[in-house]
Amino acid sequence: MARRAGSPPVSLHPMIDRGVFRRAAPNFAGGTLACHCAEDKVIVSIAAQSAHNHACGCTKCWKPAGAVFSVVAVVPRDKLEVTANGHKLQIVDSNATIQRHACSGCGTHMYGRVEKVGHPFHGLDFVHTELSEDKGWSPPTFAAFVSSIIEGGFDPAKMGAVRARLRQVGLPPFDCLSPPLMDYLATAAAKASGVIKE
Amino acid sequence: MARRAGSPPVSLHPMIDRGVFRRAAPNFAGGTLACHCAEDKVIVSIAAQSAHNHACGCTKCWKPAGAVFSVVAVVPRDKLEVTANGHKLQIVDSNATIQRHACSGCGTHMYGRVEKVGHPFHGLDFVHTELSEDKGWSPPTFAAFVSSIIEGGFDPAKMGAVRARLRQVGLPPFDCLSPPLMDYLATAAAKASGVIKE
Repeated sequence: MARRAGSPPVSLHPMIDRGVFRRAAPNFAGGTLACHCAEDKVIVSIAAQSAHNHACGCTKCWKPAGAVFSVVAVVPRDKLEVTANGHKLQIVDSNATIQRHACSGCGTHMYGRVEKVGHPFHGLDFVHTELSEDKGWSPPTFAAFVSSIIEGGFDPAKMGAVRARLRQVGLPPFDCLSPPLMDYLATAAAKASGVIKE
Repeated sequence: MARRAGSPPVSLHPMIDRGVFRRAAPNFAGGTLACHCAEDKVIVSIAAQSAHNHACGCTKCWKPAGAVFSVVAVVPRDKLEVTANGHKLQIVDSNATIQRHACSGCGTHMYGRVEKVGHPFHGLDFVHTELSEDKGWSPPTFAAFVSSIIEGGFDPAKMGAVRARLRQVGLPPFDCLSPPLMDYLATAAAKASGVIKE
């Protein structure tokens, strides 16, 4: 467990508010996610460790009630399988780049899939490992789309406190994705345009 | 003058490579920009200090020959006037949010104007104060759209050196705009959508 980083000046997400993240377990090979329904839960089985886990301030990612940020990671889509009550899943917005499959009972997003072939994130599913009781998932390591919480109604005057809190708990804040992911996207765009040869 | 920050590991822009920025002069009230033509220069007169000066890695901003980054600031559009050879100016891309007025002789962008009423940057013109021989313009204070230099063909493997150099000369690197500007844009979006009441 990481150092507890004091009580938060602003409430952002239960995990961020606690200020501690459980470490990734060595050789962790995945687990199951369950929706919030009391019965007939949608179950998603993942046969892989999560990657690129991060806090996300965008307005589209699922977050628990009262949270300002989502916490979201990726797994290879071929390692993800809906193993119970898949009939309850509905796509939130089929026009979005990330097609979020939500439980029609409780609203929880069980996975988000990029269907566009050729998109740099094609092959990855976006998941919220807080829906799992399995311990050992990779913890969040940065915060993305931080300024976007304002678009969700967050008070702009408190953004300094938000970024300070994120830094305090070890989540460097960015208003887009992290530099490695932004470089990855730019490289994909440069290869697609022919500016950089494959 | 700021501390000279050593020789650069990568060449980014003459001003960044020097590692020093001239300080803003107190009460500086503007000056003139000139294009690179040997004669019949386009002259733009600005009756204001520049604001939000920054290095920009996007592929659309004008930069001097060989530079990887642009250096660009804003001024109020009602303080900017074309005072010589305006007939040489052409809009580079009239569909772009920022309509860049370039000299058809030498290609230098003399100002970029946001014509869309209601856009958060409407009322501001984008200018390159390095086109001015007047001393005292506000210096750059951050670097924006850093990852985008890859889309211009820059080697992705050198991005660590680029961000280190930018930090070394006092230009914190961001892959979008700076946090204050991103918060400003998000606040404008939140007001436009009604999420935040005016």
